[in-house]
Amino acid sequence: MLTVLAGGVGAARFLEGVVQVVPPATVTAVVNTGDDFVLHGLVISPDLDIVTCTLADLIDREQGWGIAGDTDECMQWLGRLGGPTWFKLGDRDLALHIRRTALLSEGESLTAIADQFCQALGVAVKLLPMSDDPAPTHILTPVGEMHFEEYFVRRRAQDRVTGVRLHAAGRALPSPDALAACAEAEAILIAPSNPVVSVGPIVSLPGMREAIRSARVPVVAVSPIVGGAAIKGPAAPLMQAMGMEVSALGVARAYADLIDGIVIDQVDADLAPAIAALGLQVAVTDTIMRGPAEKAHLAAVTLALADQVRQARHGPAPDANPGAG
Amino acid sequence: MLTVLAGGVGAARFLEGVVQVVPPATVTAVVNTGDDFVLHGLVISPDLDIVTCTLADLIDREQGWGIAGDTDECMQWLGRLGGPTWFKLGDRDLALHIRRTALLSEGESLTAIADQFCQALGVAVKLLPMSDDPAPTHILTPVGEMHFEEYFVRRRAQDRVTGVRLHAAGRALPSPDALAACAEAEAILIAPSNPVVSVGPIVSLPGMREAIRSARVPVVAVSPIVGGAAIKGPAAPLMQAMGMEVSALGVARAYADLIDGIVIDQVDADLAPAIAALGLQVAVTDTIMRGPAEKAHLAAVTLALADQVRQARHGPAPDANPGAG
Repeated sequence: MLTVLAGGVGAARFLEGVVQVVPPATVTAVVNTGDDFVLHGLVISPDLDIVTCTLADLIDREQGWGIAGDTDECMQWLGRLGGPTWFKLGDRDLALHIRRTALLSEGESLTAIADQFCQALGVAVKLLPMSDDPAPTHILTPVGEMHFEEYFVRRRAQDRVTGVRLHAAGRALPSPDALAACAEAEAILIAPSNPVVSVGPIVSLPGMREAIRSARVPVVAVSPIVGGAAIKGPAAPLMQAMGMEVSALGVARAYADLIDGIVIDQVDADLAPAIAALGLQVAVTDTIMRGPAEKAHLAAVTLALADQVRQARHGPAPDANPGAG
Repeated sequence: MLTVLAGGVGAARFLEGVVQVVPPATVTAVVNTGDDFVLHGLVISPDLDIVTCTLADLIDREQGWGIAGDTDECMQWLGRLGGPTWFKLGDRDLALHIRRTALLSEGESLTAIADQFCQALGVAVKLLPMSDDPAPTHILTPVGEMHFEEYFVRRRAQDRVTGVRLHAAGRALPSPDALAACAEAEAILIAPSNPVVSVGPIVSLPGMREAIRSARVPVVAVSPIVGGAAIKGPAAPLMQAMGMEVSALGVARAYADLIDGIVIDQVDADLAPAIAALGLQVAVTDTIMRGPAEKAHLAAVTLALADQVRQARHGPAPDANPGAG
């Protein structure tokens, strides 16, 4: 059993590689819900929807989000009726938000709803929202504090970032299923997602970091930073605001107390010694996921690094050694 | 100022005639909300939407409801996700329900929302929901009590009707605006709508009947029953269940204590003497609204009957006679 900590587009593509090299039913993704927000009275879960629709092969691959071939009739009319139009919602796409909102109001958990959607759309990977509680990520800027989507989509990431506030609704708890998926995994992978606003919200949930470390299984990340820039999304300004270096080394440092190894891109090979000096194992490969072959390759390299971590551990793990203590 | 008590399709078409013969801005329609219900977590107001979209010339004229040229992408996906699909909601159409639900949850009244929609869609007639409270109409059948739309749409009016329960959510109050529209009107027209489930919910709101009668202005109805059958919709079984004769005479009897006159179709001319014997004035004409000309004609005949009622009143109204009493 493999658990992957996941954000949106990068994680979705990485998971497409993972399911080429291990059986999908053995894979669980714990997905960031820090981007979730309410618009038009509808609960929108951007990362869950991106991962679900990508694995269902329904995603608009050019955008990385939204459903392929979708139309925007409803959105146009919402605008005509005075509703906000800064966050595009396709007609098919809207069905996810409408159904999710209806089921939440009937008392279903986000976890149960994610599972229903996976079953309905034929996704064999288990997709777990990190939390069933609202856990919005807020971005602090000179013009005020705002939800991540407002910063990123509505204001097009134009504001200087002075800080990030995770779980801004108050204390959010990890879902029991998400905690269990970390505690019971044979390996934990951190997808090439934004370390600040995608992976950050997951691993800073109370008890989550401990669940990951106490699992005593290889924890391996894939750097989302290649050649000093993010493949997609606002990782650079957000990492900078958090005082991180925008590089694979910066990512490695951010994760240093959580991971055993990291996969970095070949263009960053010169950073490998500095990362190794942090006590991490490093794999260097082509991490740009252009198509299915590159995705499968990256997944295979990442899993191989996890195996390498496992083999490098000297002596059995304490709980496998009944004679100890 | 003219106030029209309105249901759905018949009322919408009648109002299209009215606005051809008097300035739209002098017309107010008090619209039935007994058909309103929640589906997919969205508040749906069938009659309000039909009247709004008809007067905005956006209606699907073949169906009488829905928006012309609408698509059903969202609905198909809602079905795919396990949602109910028995009530068709087009993609454009959904924008009305989504926006209405969002505004209600922000604390706006249905009255304010109806006004916003009219302004956004260019409707000059003032459309007033009969009530800002939930006032669902339930149909009693041998298989149980159900919402009107469940009886009519989901179960295709297949069940024997044993009764009708208006305002099934408990006591609903008329909106202050709707009461005022009746109290201050110079004439009140009852559109050719279902007397049981369209007009019934309006006039049985507490104080509404009194507001209409105490206005002391002509009150004139148009019979929705022509040749012993409803032009559209389930009026026949519902009238029968209420012990009414399914005829223009039955309609006249149902409204007898509320109206001064009634417009009936030429095919029902033989009923005129019996209706006159109820103390009502009668106009006989072609009431089938095939196109704009027939709609305008029906509106003109109805307004002429209201004038006739006004002129036929002998002596001044009591409050215009300071010497009386």
